[in-house]
Amino acid sequence: MFFSRRFASQYAPRRLPPTIKELLGSNIPQETSVSLNGWIKSIRKQKRVSFAVISDGSNAKGIQAVFPNTLDVKDLTNGSSVRLTGNLVSSPGSGQAKELQVKAVDVLGACPQETYPIQKKDLTNEYLRENVHLRARTTAIAAMLRLRDCLHRSIHDYLKSQSFVHVHAPILTANDAEGAGETFRIAPVAAHPDAQVTETQCPTEFFGAPAHLTVSSQLHMEAFQAALSRVYTANPAFRAERSQTSRHLAEFWMVEPEWTLTEGITEVCDVTEDLLRDIVNRAFVECAEDVEALHAAGGRLERLEALKAAVSPDTPRWRRMTYTEAVETLQRTGVKFKQTPTWGASLSSEHERYLAEEVVKGPVFVTNYPREIKAFYMRVDDPSLPREQQTVSCFDLLVPHMGELVGGSVREERADVLEEKMREEGMILPEQSSNEGPYAWYLSLRKLGATPHGGFGLGFERLVSWVGDVDSVKECIPVPRTVGRIDL
Amino acid sequence: MFFSRRFASQYAPRRLPPTIKELLGSNIPQETSVSLNGWIKSIRKQKRVSFAVISDGSNAKGIQAVFPNTLDVKDLTNGSSVRLTGNLVSSPGSGQAKELQVKAVDVLGACPQETYPIQKKDLTNEYLRENVHLRARTTAIAAMLRLRDCLHRSIHDYLKSQSFVHVHAPILTANDAEGAGETFRIAPVAAHPDAQVTETQCPTEFFGAPAHLTVSSQLHMEAFQAALSRVYTANPAFRAERSQTSRHLAEFWMVEPEWTLTEGITEVCDVTEDLLRDIVNRAFVECAEDVEALHAAGGRLERLEALKAAVSPDTPRWRRMTYTEAVETLQRTGVKFKQTPTWGASLSSEHERYLAEEVVKGPVFVTNYPREIKAFYMRVDDPSLPREQQTVSCFDLLVPHMGELVGGSVREERADVLEEKMREEGMILPEQSSNEGPYAWYLSLRKLGATPHGGFGLGFERLVSWVGDVDSVKECIPVPRTVGRIDL
Repeated sequence: MFFSRRFASQYAPRRLPPTIKELLGSNIPQETSVSLNGWIKSIRKQKRVSFAVISDGSNAKGIQAVFPNTLDVKDLTNGSSVRLTGNLVSSPGSGQAKELQVKAVDVLGACPQETYPIQKKDLTNEYLRENVHLRARTTAIAAMLRLRDCLHRSIHDYLKSQSFVHVHAPILTANDAEGAGETFRIAPVAAHPDAQVTETQCPTEFFGAPAHLTVSSQLHMEAFQAALSRVYTANPAFRAERSQTSRHLAEFWMVEPEWTLTEGITEVCDVTEDLLRDIVNRAFVECAEDVEALHAAGGRLERLEALKAAVSPDTPRWRRMTYTEAVETLQRTGVKFKQTPTWGASLSSEHERYLAEEVVKGPVFVTNYPREIKAFYMRVDDPSLPREQQTVSCFDLLVPHMGELVGGSVREERADVLEEKMREEGMILPEQSSNEGPYAWYLSLRKLGATPHGGFGLGFERLVSWVGDVDSVKECIPVPRTVGRIDL
Repeated sequence: MFFSRRFASQYAPRRLPPTIKELLGSNIPQETSVSLNGWIKSIRKQKRVSFAVISDGSNAKGIQAVFPNTLDVKDLTNGSSVRLTGNLVSSPGSGQAKELQVKAVDVLGACPQETYPIQKKDLTNEYLRENVHLRARTTAIAAMLRLRDCLHRSIHDYLKSQSFVHVHAPILTANDAEGAGETFRIAPVAAHPDAQVTETQCPTEFFGAPAHLTVSSQLHMEAFQAALSRVYTANPAFRAERSQTSRHLAEFWMVEPEWTLTEGITEVCDVTEDLLRDIVNRAFVECAEDVEALHAAGGRLERLEALKAAVSPDTPRWRRMTYTEAVETLQRTGVKFKQTPTWGASLSSEHERYLAEEVVKGPVFVTNYPREIKAFYMRVDDPSLPREQQTVSCFDLLVPHMGELVGGSVREERADVLEEKMREEGMILPEQSSNEGPYAWYLSLRKLGATPHGGFGLGFERLVSWVGDVDSVKECIPVPRTVGRIDL
């Protein structure tokens, strides 16, 4: 009696059953019976024995299951979900160290072949986007999802190791993102059907003012930096982008660290590079099978070697060059670009890729762009120069086959310089004092215990595309959102 | 020459300078000079020596800095940002083990007292919401932000330890969340000013169809479960909630795991409880100062003791009772509730709190609610009963002083039962086949290799409120969004 009460009062957490990945990594003796759940990815039925690959999504290759002809395999079809019991034994075949000798099989959910969209191999990306609710059953999309998970976790771990605090910036914002592209706006509420309710009681704007979806959390992160010193967010962001490119989504995820600086733009570049090297190296270890599966699908294994070289500890810090040097370099090449490289104009995608692929042959930080082509919040290097000659403390990190992967800057912490720039952008109107208008809070951060600070924004899908050599960011996010289409 | 080239080619990551928390936790000898950045939280100027508390946001208490009268302290005011150099010595005062004997001080950013909103102590929550861009400089909000970070990290770590894959569900969705409350809708694009562009070329809906902000990622998570077996999201969610309560926000964060089940609702309850116990215990260790600061601010330290008891390994599994038992228990108490507890009706907030606070005196899972008051996707326990007597495999986890913290269920995996429920809800129209309509993809998951599966949704701000004993969820999120107001 006493003992049973003691036992009853003990709490023991539950362990979920081992996944296929865990089983394959374990040392379970081959005489011990094991069970697993999964979906049939392929099956080859033969007279004496049948072979199937079973996946539960925990690894890239799944597990090979061998069914003796004493078992009924006629209901085992691609896509059906099964529960298998058997023994893990050394595999005589190549491609796997162990396989499951099946002793019992239960079909949990059948999958009629005539209606299953994911049967064939080599389905096109467009076809899989139309079946986005099922495309995670393909090897490449599942590998991409695990790679995302791995990179996401590594980013959090790395920033934690540098004492950053993760802060969720708001998704809905009053900020309409001056100059950062078209925003999505929340629809006003339909007029209230009860006529007795006046508009004052029930205004058409739910929040009392127009609300937009965030395009970047940077301004908000600057406010939290001004209290916690080192902060970051890993949030969704939205742009009403109408052009369909392989690098743009209407909904995407972005990692935005912001911190009190002790040095200038070099520190921002260094932290960016350190983060990227750390997380990519971790992906090579923790997610090796998936990275290889993605690169194998792309068929350009030389890019995997180039990526490994870029993040190797034997590779010195990535090249930094100023915008001015970059333009001069492009001009000197003699290459006939569609758009002639000119000081004062933005670098085109063609210029960016040429710098990374041909000049540097690896990642390159291009720094100190002209003030006129960059955002208002970037710190002016020398305000005494004529405005059209001024540059700002910023960088774009360009990588081969993609172009911009990260953008960062030192933020303008001088209240007077910032106010002038905000007036130029119309963020403070001529009749307003600097304490008025929707961005007064932002300027006030410069008047109430300002610090030198900076940060960067890393597009998460571009990161996945870079690490996995995936052609389009539409295949780098679980459910892509682009103009003209919304599935699920 | 050779050596300098070798050294130049070595990559060494940068370490950012130590934070105040790191300095206080280090063993730097007191003769070594150290530097730190921070904001002045309070300062007491005396003739021979001045004392200030400096915070960089890395810990709850900051650091005590002692300024000899040889240093000029007249510009040191609350809120100003400073860089201090000095020596870390044992503190003779109570409340801190070490203090900084300052040798040099730089004011990085002054903070005029006449315009600084965060000077006084005991500012009201409402006042701080009006100054949301600065409120992270208060002890309680900063502690809440660090607690969020800690809980968020622990959730990811715990789910990783159970082989869950983190998947970002989409924020914009075609799904208008049948029955789950009012959704926000993305505004149609204004008619294109160029009259030559027809509506076909440039439709008013950016996505070609109305797009909503997600209210829950569950349905999407079910699709990813059907490929990866164990998935979760930790996403923002949105409800156009007009009632102003201490438990509701228009924008909030939610953790939603979904996995292939081997058992029924007991497994879903167990995993929920295991997750909560693990992360709360971690907060007591990794974030102890912040948890204590928040509870001290609330002034109800008995709640901290109750929380510690609830998650202690000596406490057996939390009580589970069916909805039927819960209603009978409430009816038997003889308490006069505003709303009489009746089988078939929802439990009111008063009922929920009574069960947790008075009956169980701790967290309690209430399970198997009537089908008619729960969502269409929950698994019917016994479809052979008359509909009004049917219950579903679900739970609400109720905790003292709050009510519902988590809701979860086993999902209906039987295609025929689910189809009937979807038709009832109007998700499939009478003239449509089961392969038609906006939710056909969801039903198809039951026809293409279905598995028994389930999951739960944990409101992240409610979790923070519970762990920190914070009265309103508005003080549990960096920037709260509620009806009638949008700051920043």
